[in-house]
Amino acid sequence: MREFDLLRHVYRSNPALGAPVLIPPGDDMGMVSLHGPLVLAAVDQLVAGRHFTPDSTPPALVGRKAVTRSLSDIAAMAAVPVATLAAVVLPPVFGHDRATALFDAMRETAAAYGAPLIGGDIAVHHESHHPLVCAITVLAEPAGHPPVTRSGAKPGDVIYVTGTLGGSLNADGSGHHLTFEPRIELALELSNHLGTRLHAMLDISDGLGRDASHIAECSGIEIQLDAARIPCRAGINWRRAMSDGEDYELCFAATGDVPREINGVPITPVGEALAVGEGRRVRESRAAAVVAGPRVIVRDGGTAYAADDFGWQHES
Amino acid sequence: MREFDLLRHVYRSNPALGAPVLIPPGDDMGMVSLHGPLVLAAVDQLVAGRHFTPDSTPPALVGRKAVTRSLSDIAAMAAVPVATLAAVVLPPVFGHDRATALFDAMRETAAAYGAPLIGGDIAVHHESHHPLVCAITVLAEPAGHPPVTRSGAKPGDVIYVTGTLGGSLNADGSGHHLTFEPRIELALELSNHLGTRLHAMLDISDGLGRDASHIAECSGIEIQLDAARIPCRAGINWRRAMSDGEDYELCFAATGDVPREINGVPITPVGEALAVGEGRRVRESRAAAVVAGPRVIVRDGGTAYAADDFGWQHES
Repeated sequence: MREFDLLRHVYRSNPALGAPVLIPPGDDMGMVSLHGPLVLAAVDQLVAGRHFTPDSTPPALVGRKAVTRSLSDIAAMAAVPVATLAAVVLPPVFGHDRATALFDAMRETAAAYGAPLIGGDIAVHHESHHPLVCAITVLAEPAGHPPVTRSGAKPGDVIYVTGTLGGSLNADGSGHHLTFEPRIELALELSNHLGTRLHAMLDISDGLGRDASHIAECSGIEIQLDAARIPCRAGINWRRAMSDGEDYELCFAATGDVPREINGVPITPVGEALAVGEGRRVRESRAAAVVAGPRVIVRDGGTAYAADDFGWQHES
Repeated sequence: MREFDLLRHVYRSNPALGAPVLIPPGDDMGMVSLHGPLVLAAVDQLVAGRHFTPDSTPPALVGRKAVTRSLSDIAAMAAVPVATLAAVVLPPVFGHDRATALFDAMRETAAAYGAPLIGGDIAVHHESHHPLVCAITVLAEPAGHPPVTRSGAKPGDVIYVTGTLGGSLNADGSGHHLTFEPRIELALELSNHLGTRLHAMLDISDGLGRDASHIAECSGIEIQLDAARIPCRAGINWRRAMSDGEDYELCFAATGDVPREINGVPITPVGEALAVGEGRRVRESRAAAVVAGPRVIVRDGGTAYAADDFGWQHES
């Protein structure tokens, strides 16, 4: 297939070219109209062999995940989706039908969450075994309040997670890494409800241990989690719930009353934010085996573990 | 190297976190402040083996080209750069020094053109021979006038190109595909000078023949070019000048007086926009060999060629 034919198909069938899209895809840049002068942007990638199994994953699910993964970043900021751009490198043997299914899924998913596709780029690898790569950029705008960053958690805050964790990559069909719902609406309701009491938030992509350490590092705090309170999926223990990753649930730090569920999604307190050094006694009792300077500790009964490295680490 | 260490290096050394960047890289999304509610966005990719030779191209030039290629889309709209996001898939064996050189070049290039890096994503291939992929998203805003699209050219307009064309991929060191200057300032001066007389514009990435056909198709016109007027680089004939691509010069349609150079860059009239069918007689004289419905014709002396396919076509 030719790039321009495929782009033409993508652009012609875009159902979401509504009022705010002032320059639709097909020009050098797309343009959208915001409600104000602030724009948020993020990019995430989906790489065959790394984030999905190319032979057994339907292209429509690949396209869906590529977009929902980036939309999850919008949820993490409690922001409102605006637009999507899709950059894809196809293997030369990918074929027209699979490419169409991939792009249809990206376009429809983006539109369904209010972030219509406004641009993209398609390249083709020069060798047949090179992997499909999707890089999805999403634009968003604030929802009438400042976006919720990773850096506002304070000692004394309670740490919460939405939904249940673990088993996202289960091969038996129960894994949710391809089918999760980005928590955009939940995040907006949460931020409307809590206002400035919602101090910090992110989405759980690498695993609760590692992702909580990002909040801790950005906020200049430490976090202590209670293993018994971590909401695990059926058949999953707390270690896997903290380390499997790809849940795309939210982890946040807040003070005061927090609802126990929103729209049927449970919200569970799992720990607390501490001043740096408050957890020191625990760590020193574990002597040299503890990684230097853990930001996140998880307590399981009488034992405390450094949990910064519970989670997916990209190595090269 | 670990992804987070690399990201930390990228973010810590970002020199361009000025006032308009309200949420710098390192959070789930970056945020910038615009001058109004309109935002433009584009994404372009650079793929090893497809857009550069991985073994012989210094990582710093790869990073530079990845960013300037996307910045060239901002020039094509006569818009003002705002921000950049970089998504990169590294081969596992890429190594720390090369990765650092790549990201430093991306960050510095983006900052130099007023589009500081506000976010990104790094993934690592699971097989050693898989190629480096960079997907660069750029954000821009209008420059006090509507962006210049591809769709406003009218019959009677003169077609111009900036600079000189061809030989961009010359292996003797004279090729400019790695070192070109995106024509952002030139485009802004041009649009300030011409105002609403600047009807349509794009940047020449695929080759003048193919890119002019995009203006023709989007504007619902035909274009006739004069081979003798095409500004060719030294040693390059008009066919190569039209088809090599990767020039990242501008091609535009305008009416009235147009300066012959801006900031030392020549601006050359190369043809005219015609109503659809005006060029029909010429095409019919070439009988069946002519591709059905060419949008762009180039005249070389007494001969006319269908030129839509003079240029790089991505095949799979």
